[in-house]
Amino acid sequence: VARPRLYPVILAGGRGTRFWPRSRKRLAKQVLALTGERTMIQETVARLAPLAPARNFWVITNGALRSVIARQLGKLPRTQILAEPAARNTAPAIGLAAFILERTDPSAVLGLFPADHVISNAKRFRATVARAAAIAAAGENIVVMGLKPTRPETGYGYVEVGARRKGVLGVKRFTEKPDRRKAARFLATGRYYWNAGMFLWSARTLANALREHLPATARHLETIAAAWGAPRFASVYRRLYPKCENISVDYAVLERRSRKGERRSKIYCIPAEFGWSDLGSWAALHEHHARAGVRANVFDAASGLALEAHGNYIHAPGKFVAAVGVEDLVVVETRDALLVTTRGRSQDVGKLVKELERRKLHRLL
Amino acid sequence: VARPRLYPVILAGGRGTRFWPRSRKRLAKQVLALTGERTMIQETVARLAPLAPARNFWVITNGALRSVIARQLGKLPRTQILAEPAARNTAPAIGLAAFILERTDPSAVLGLFPADHVISNAKRFRATVARAAAIAAAGENIVVMGLKPTRPETGYGYVEVGARRKGVLGVKRFTEKPDRRKAARFLATGRYYWNAGMFLWSARTLANALREHLPATARHLETIAAAWGAPRFASVYRRLYPKCENISVDYAVLERRSRKGERRSKIYCIPAEFGWSDLGSWAALHEHHARAGVRANVFDAASGLALEAHGNYIHAPGKFVAAVGVEDLVVVETRDALLVTTRGRSQDVGKLVKELERRKLHRLL
Repeated sequence: VARPRLYPVILAGGRGTRFWPRSRKRLAKQVLALTGERTMIQETVARLAPLAPARNFWVITNGALRSVIARQLGKLPRTQILAEPAARNTAPAIGLAAFILERTDPSAVLGLFPADHVISNAKRFRATVARAAAIAAAGENIVVMGLKPTRPETGYGYVEVGARRKGVLGVKRFTEKPDRRKAARFLATGRYYWNAGMFLWSARTLANALREHLPATARHLETIAAAWGAPRFASVYRRLYPKCENISVDYAVLERRSRKGERRSKIYCIPAEFGWSDLGSWAALHEHHARAGVRANVFDAASGLALEAHGNYIHAPGKFVAAVGVEDLVVVETRDALLVTTRGRSQDVGKLVKELERRKLHRLL
Repeated sequence: VARPRLYPVILAGGRGTRFWPRSRKRLAKQVLALTGERTMIQETVARLAPLAPARNFWVITNGALRSVIARQLGKLPRTQILAEPAARNTAPAIGLAAFILERTDPSAVLGLFPADHVISNAKRFRATVARAAAIAAAGENIVVMGLKPTRPETGYGYVEVGARRKGVLGVKRFTEKPDRRKAARFLATGRYYWNAGMFLWSARTLANALREHLPATARHLETIAAAWGAPRFASVYRRLYPKCENISVDYAVLERRSRKGERRSKIYCIPAEFGWSDLGSWAALHEHHARAGVRANVFDAASGLALEAHGNYIHAPGKFVAAVGVEDLVVVETRDALLVTTRGRSQDVGKLVKELERRKLHRLL
């Protein structure tokens, strides 16, 4: 079997407000170096690089981030780093790439990958993606990466799987963010996986699915795709893209198609175990770095000293950090701001950013 | 009655390690602007200025602080800002000023004042000092400012008073830092005051007391005083001052003299109520600023926002501070360091500085 031609499509339009004050409109989570030397999006591209040449990568982002992303990903073709003229969620974003690729290479396999996730085992990740790509290359298959759930998380979507076929699991149903009781039940059955927003399909399969489930948007995207490479592309993109429906590919395609039934929908789930985290908050970043467990202090600083202090995450680049008698705090310092909260409350940093917006404190956003 | 000639002697040799990371060896508490625009020592001098001309002021400090103090107190005679060649506690420090003044103006009244205390009612403070100075000017009287105790504090010295004579209280006994039970008993009797280290006496009275109670040190100080104004002063001071006994004036003079009995010792206590605080920790500074009570946040920053956050003290000059779901914390940021602790643990910042010393982290000291 020939190795399928993989085209990674990196979705990098989010803001990641929960990493305020480090994350800002023009410096979103995906362009920050939260876990090491490289930024999240650099990590994402580096992780996939062995599977596809640089010319195959596409990045969909927004106007505020495009130039910093182009700078960070200097080896990628600049024309394939697209800034959406208006935020239109994942269906139009990946859809445009599908319609463009369908014209030149209809059996190309598109893989959708968020730009801001952490994956600790890159090798196993690549093996899983390669397997998923091989399945997606055949016929009208759609492959979803399924993550083994470890807690009754209410913030993710869930994939219910059915019978094992050809070494992968058939998909019965998608459920968006369940309540806690439902999530606990899902967890107990062992038949549910987290939907981490990583999908693979051929350009033709996705294009046809969009024509079927999202016909008006598909027409706009086809017109834009027809202009690809021509001088008029920018103006056509700017004019028509905002007319596309603001909808996720999960909802527009996967959920609708899954209603055809497990066999007819041809949606497959590949269980994936490669040390995944969506790094959703300062608490998650603490957990990522705290090798010695949750009681460990993580000081992202020049150096530090803890006296009867445990489980704190403190970011103060270049400084000496001293923690005395404090537990489970999150303290993050930037050039112009200082955040003080707890690991338990770090989800509420998003609320804080909303409040900054309400107060029109633009220079802090 | 002629107004006595008051010579304020400001003791400014301390380090105030509990205000780390703001306080450093070369930037001790007394030269920091902790409570407002002016530094603690500037406040101390300004508070006394209506009672004495600038030429009457003396400042005793150390070599690490002398130049910054001279800069901050530009109107004072530079020759009267003395850096001790070796730290020798309060008896030699004020003693030298007494022997120098005794030669030119034996009935001059010396008033000893720490450089780093907060006094909220300056007018009442001056009225009390003026009254104390008038008493100190007469005969061999020694006057101690007594602060009404408000809690069984174990970190201060206590003055036990006896009969009221000529409108002031006779002093029976000095007790250094009692344990908590003893302090509580003192408080209950109503006959004890805190000794805040503010004393007044004539040059002659203090010089004679030192000759009596500390004869060897008195001889050295007289030799140094005899060189005052001559080119050889600096070398004599440098050579002989380190030979003086390292002892507080409380212990060397007051305690010993008080053993003569309440009448013969001629030590008087003036009860003082002028909103005093020795501002001993970040918690005390929070209390000083928190007009609305201990649940109030105090942000020493460009601006700030609190979401379900109470009782925090956060110092981050020029920055926007955001506190989310945290209580009673102390966070202090400087150019090179970040301290995170609680109000309750802020006494332990001194321990932290000791640990920095042990680790020889000189650039942080």
